Amino acid sequence: MNRDDAARTRAVVVGAGFAGIEAVKKLARAGLDVTLVDRTNHHLFKPMLYQCATAALSPGEIAWPGRFLFRGRENVRVVMAEATGIDREARRLLTDAGDFPYDHLVIAAGTRYAYFGNEDWGAHAPGLDTLADAVEIRRRILTAFEKAELTDDSDERRRLLTFVVVGGGPTGVEMAGAISEIARLTLRREFRHFDPGSARVVLLEAMNGILGQLPDKLSAYALKALERMKVEVVTGAKVEDIQRDRVTYEGGEIDASVIVWAAGVKASPAAEWLGLEPGPGGRVTVEDDLSVPGFPEIMVIGDTAAVKDEDGDPVPGLAPAAKQMGKHAGRRIAALAKGAEPPGAFRYRHMGDFATIGRNRAIVKMGPVQMTGFIAWVLWSIAHIMFLVTARSRVFVSMTWAWNYVTHRRAARLITGHWTADAGEKTGER
Amino acid sequence: MNRDDAARTRAVVVGAGFAGIEAVKKLARAGLDVTLVDRTNHHLFKPMLYQCATAALSPGEIAWPGRFLFRGRENVRVVMAEATGIDREARRLLTDAGDFPYDHLVIAAGTRYAYFGNEDWGAHAPGLDTLADAVEIRRRILTAFEKAELTDDSDERRRLLTFVVVGGGPTGVEMAGAISEIARLTLRREFRHFDPGSARVVLLEAMNGILGQLPDKLSAYALKALERMKVEVVTGAKVEDIQRDRVTYEGGEIDASVIVWAAGVKASPAAEWLGLEPGPGGRVTVEDDLSVPGFPEIMVIGDTAAVKDEDGDPVPGLAPAAKQMGKHAGRRIAALAKGAEPPGAFRYRHMGDFATIGRNRAIVKMGPVQMTGFIAWVLWSIAHIMFLVTARSRVFVSMTWAWNYVTHRRAARLITGHWTADAGEKTGER
Repeated sequence: MNRDDAARTRAVVVGAGFAGIEAVKKLARAGLDVTLVDRTNHHLFKPMLYQCATAALSPGEIAWPGRFLFRGRENVRVVMAEATGIDREARRLLTDAGDFPYDHLVIAAGTRYAYFGNEDWGAHAPGLDTLADAVEIRRRILTAFEKAELTDDSDERRRLLTFVVVGGGPTGVEMAGAISEIARLTLRREFRHFDPGSARVVLLEAMNGILGQLPDKLSAYALKALERMKVEVVTGAKVEDIQRDRVTYEGGEIDASVIVWAAGVKASPAAEWLGLEPGPGGRVTVEDDLSVPGFPEIMVIGDTAAVKDEDGDPVPGLAPAAKQMGKHAGRRIAALAKGAEPPGAFRYRHMGDFATIGRNRAIVKMGPVQMTGFIAWVLWSIAHIMFLVTARSRVFVSMTWAWNYVTHRRAARLITGHWTADAGEKTGER
Repeated sequence: MNRDDAARTRAVVVGAGFAGIEAVKKLARAGLDVTLVDRTNHHLFKPMLYQCATAALSPGEIAWPGRFLFRGRENVRVVMAEATGIDREARRLLTDAGDFPYDHLVIAAGTRYAYFGNEDWGAHAPGLDTLADAVEIRRRILTAFEKAELTDDSDERRRLLTFVVVGGGPTGVEMAGAISEIARLTLRREFRHFDPGSARVVLLEAMNGILGQLPDKLSAYALKALERMKVEVVTGAKVEDIQRDRVTYEGGEIDASVIVWAAGVKASPAAEWLGLEPGPGGRVTVEDDLSVPGFPEIMVIGDTAAVKDEDGDPVPGLAPAAKQMGKHAGRRIAALAKGAEPPGAFRYRHMGDFATIGRNRAIVKMGPVQMTGFIAWVLWSIAHIMFLVTARSRVFVSMTWAWNYVTHRRAARLITGHWTADAGEKTGER
């Protein structure tokens, strides 16, 4: 009987990120009628997206079709559609491809890049959110070197070979380190009119130090590691304006050909869909069981939710946090569908902090254990390989990494353009 | 002394395809001052491009940066620029990134798709020429299945699940077979509202049979193999019109969601750059040593050249033919630069004809030897792996193929959109 109740219970999950996928897994096993809605056709392993943007991995190595992941689950339907709103009274999710009625709704719609009200900066300084973002950033970085080979104007070449990363969190640190490696190692001996190692990589951070969430000792290590890689780290440098080829910050300005934004995100507009006042960072403030106040049949999880840990600190936007919330949501709804007692409050368990800074150097903090250097880098690599979704990816990414590591090469150094009807390949304007 | 003469001789090669790469290799070894100009940053292994378009391989597995291939050759400079003309008097190649003076010029600029004067068909029926084309076709194919899952209108679903390939040459046959495999094998069990195996794949050919260049026995085998894979082959079906969702041909019309063009190419506008009357298919008619009549310092090779074999038949647009011409061009220019006797007429040696029709089935014709079936398919696979440019690609493509073969899966089933400033990922209109 319980089983039948479950099978008649319609759960709709919005978002195929870490949180959404975990929720669907639990709901699928519990036998509910599950629909997973995502605006793309794939689950993306975002912690490695910077490796796509820097040509180390191909998009196909870090993304898998949602429907492929659940192919064996007859009770899971996966649809590619973009959520546009929620009809709370009729209990329907509204999308650009029609409505989806639900008994339980899980919103795990993640975040998007935010430019603190200067959304026009986005064109000049893409963030790293989707595969299209990564391919675009890769195109800009590789194109800058190509153009530097073609110019005879030394000022122009200096500008072309200047790369600015805005934001000194883990993504910014990883991007800056990887761009420096491209210049100093990957492209060595490939240009005739300049030394790619002369490229300038600048990391701008508004606060007084990078990787602010980590203990000072680890931040200091990261700073030193970046400097050894010839990345210029400028702290206390709040960005005031971004134009096509120039970043202006408190205390200076830099002419640059590529500007990458890693300084801030805001939640998807779930609060708006729900008709609620958005919380910090546009997030939805939820009850301690992750349901929406007044709407126990709606849960908001992952980066879209404003959740506190036991110390009252905000739960960070990390993959393990999203997965834990997804599991909690799946368990709660499965219990409710069977008429069982749902689990109580969500409790976040912090697994650790990781950041890598180019080959051989990383930072790991797990509870009281702090590690830096080669051992930390090996740990980072193993942890990330293990987190990959399919066995195939684990094998192929390990091999690609090994090859990249030994040869200093990068497997996916392609400038691909936008498809247009008349020309096939058209590289973008820049 | 010879060596010094060579080092002072400037050779410019346009096009990083099979022909151009071989020419550069020879010229590099001979010590000339070589510049390779291509509008992309990569050499593309086109015989496998259909595998990108059908999600079996990633773009990074079949394309390599030109400058990477020649990184160790100090006398080779690689530039990303698009040729726009030739100043024959001043001996300069004109490009969108400036002029390149030459003592010897090699034009190996390949072909582009041609729609017999109906260039507006291109938007509705992309050809398979660049990586951007392949990613676009992949997007259209995968999106059609996604949309079919979302519609409740059975007529609409039938249209969405209809795929038309125009042109029954090797590329058309390979595409049609691969699309059928996606529907019947790869996507099995992944949709809830329809059976992807019900998809209709139609191959339209204007002539009376497919693979017209092959002996009847082999063509008949290919036809049978396609029909066993539920591909509908319609011969004598000259296409009269292509609209967004419809192909009209002599004797019928088909509503389809994806239309792929594999019916005709024309040469790059090299004849125009040279101020010459274009030959058959827009090609440049060359002397028997592949130089341009009246301009011994300019050679046209590969698919851009109209060349005859010893029997007076046109040399086919195949990779081995392009490579042979590239080698000949390199040898001739190297000899002239050193003041040595250049080789005489170019002689084409036909290596054979290959075509694959899905898993386990292929056609091989090498001289008097004709093979079909599994053995031919294994031969096709080995030959193509061996032709790949780097050892890394050989290892990775072999592994991907093995994995695809055993699991019936495809590694790169990603719908990625065009990057736009405001939204990151935006899937195209269709």
